[in-house]
Amino acid sequence: MKNVLVTGAGGFVGTHVVSALLRSGYEVHAVDILEPSRREIGVSYHQVDLFDHAAVRGLLSRLKPNHLVSLAWTTTHGTYWTSPSNLDWTGATLQLARVFRELGGVRFVGAGTCAEYDWEGASPYSDHNSPCKPKTLYGVSKLATFRILESFAKTTGLSFAWGRVFFLFGAGEGPKRLVPFVLSNLLAGSPAGCNNPDLARDFLHVSDVARAFVALLDSKAEGAVNIASGKATTLGDLVVMLGEAAGRPDLVQFTSSGQGNEPAAIVASVSRLRSETSFRPALTLEDAVRQTVQDYRNKLKEVCPS
Amino acid sequence: MKNVLVTGAGGFVGTHVVSALLRSGYEVHAVDILEPSRREIGVSYHQVDLFDHAAVRGLLSRLKPNHLVSLAWTTTHGTYWTSPSNLDWTGATLQLARVFRELGGVRFVGAGTCAEYDWEGASPYSDHNSPCKPKTLYGVSKLATFRILESFAKTTGLSFAWGRVFFLFGAGEGPKRLVPFVLSNLLAGSPAGCNNPDLARDFLHVSDVARAFVALLDSKAEGAVNIASGKATTLGDLVVMLGEAAGRPDLVQFTSSGQGNEPAAIVASVSRLRSETSFRPALTLEDAVRQTVQDYRNKLKEVCPS
Repeated sequence: MKNVLVTGAGGFVGTHVVSALLRSGYEVHAVDILEPSRREIGVSYHQVDLFDHAAVRGLLSRLKPNHLVSLAWTTTHGTYWTSPSNLDWTGATLQLARVFRELGGVRFVGAGTCAEYDWEGASPYSDHNSPCKPKTLYGVSKLATFRILESFAKTTGLSFAWGRVFFLFGAGEGPKRLVPFVLSNLLAGSPAGCNNPDLARDFLHVSDVARAFVALLDSKAEGAVNIASGKATTLGDLVVMLGEAAGRPDLVQFTSSGQGNEPAAIVASVSRLRSETSFRPALTLEDAVRQTVQDYRNKLKEVCPS
Repeated sequence: MKNVLVTGAGGFVGTHVVSALLRSGYEVHAVDILEPSRREIGVSYHQVDLFDHAAVRGLLSRLKPNHLVSLAWTTTHGTYWTSPSNLDWTGATLQLARVFRELGGVRFVGAGTCAEYDWEGASPYSDHNSPCKPKTLYGVSKLATFRILESFAKTTGLSFAWGRVFFLFGAGEGPKRLVPFVLSNLLAGSPAGCNNPDLARDFLHVSDVARAFVALLDSKAEGAVNIASGKATTLGDLVVMLGEAAGRPDLVQFTSSGQGNEPAAIVASVSRLRSETSFRPALTLEDAVRQTVQDYRNKLKEVCPS
């Protein structure tokens, strides 16, 4: 049986990956440093500090997973781009891969980012052609981790893929990020929008990102594979869609159309994801927006039942 | 006072770096996992496992060095190119830099390698122009560590340089490497040579490599700086020089002139080292060879006094 260990299992993407793996028939071991906020039936949860090398070795020795999805990393909004903990996560991810392989692990899938690409280059970004030249400590650390793991995998015969995630949203996202920020305002009856409505980004619902990770794990693809929709959507269009789905298009307003230093477009080429894995998005962008609004409404009802 | 911590202090380069730092007036803290084989008066020795994060933090908290020379890495002849421990050393080096900076450290100098360059590119390799495209896990890991530290340094205001070491020799080198192998044979009266006498490499005596690290530490240079002579010497010429200095030119013989897959030339451009640091080699290549032969003779006398 395919026995998979998932790190960062309690995170935004991780919770969805755990569900998707379970649906795909894996024996799932979910690892996080925190107690799971919700336990899924059929999943084994393990509370482990990935910076504790001895604990990681102990866990892997006991479970002997043959598959691994490595999602754990710093993702604190506003700080993760420059946080020194990017260095810790690089080291922890390398240790995890090293011990996994040493104990007989077969396939390792890690989480990369569109921030590995050269954002002064031409979008769409290709996972097999576009130059990588990250400008942030986060992007540099992710790319460096990828390069080492790629070389390590070749050296040791490990099967290895690296899912480069673009932009995502859905229930469970950190409250300061664009979609939760806009929705929480709209649903409270306050005006909301964004500063750079003309910026084009590549969005995928978090549940589809998770399904793409599982498809990548199930595939034989090696190296970097973009996880994205392949379609450009402006932030303005996304916010308008949120306004309509929330029934409050009247509250949508944009404060500026200057893009500042942000790249005009960050969109993926998804040819590898399409041709080398079985992944097809389950949700259109419209469906994903409606689903997200519904999830936030339900959440609000839970929190404020009156 | 300049208070420097040196890791890998008991190694081939480290022992020379410790001496050179002491001569330059630093308060020197020498760190190695092994007991020092020789203690230099005026140096503080610390036996620490750099994979033990808590021990590293404890040491740095106690000593509060403002300068750091990070030399510790796997260097086991024959295995270091592909060893999984390259992943451990990446993590350990990142942790060291992170904790050093957190505790107020000012300048960090790490040890890079000519194996970070694209050896299919044109030699001489420039530290500010030549593309990096390492082919080995060792080279990939060193380059990745450099990239992360460079970004980390910019983010946190750390002053940071990375000495890319080319080829070096001298007393204390591992016995299976070219110069010790040739010399041990010649001094025992056995024939010796090398397989690829036409390959051109850039050699520096280990004591000059160490002086270059100290000059780099004392400079304001940021980023990658080649540590080398800037001159091409063929392996054949080096072996002939060893034969002459050992008084046994008759024993020198070459078994093949095919270069196999090895790059024809690996030579450094040393413009940054020359213009941005005070370093000038103390030894010519001839002097370095003679010094090395003398050191091996003395060593032989110690080991076999009769």
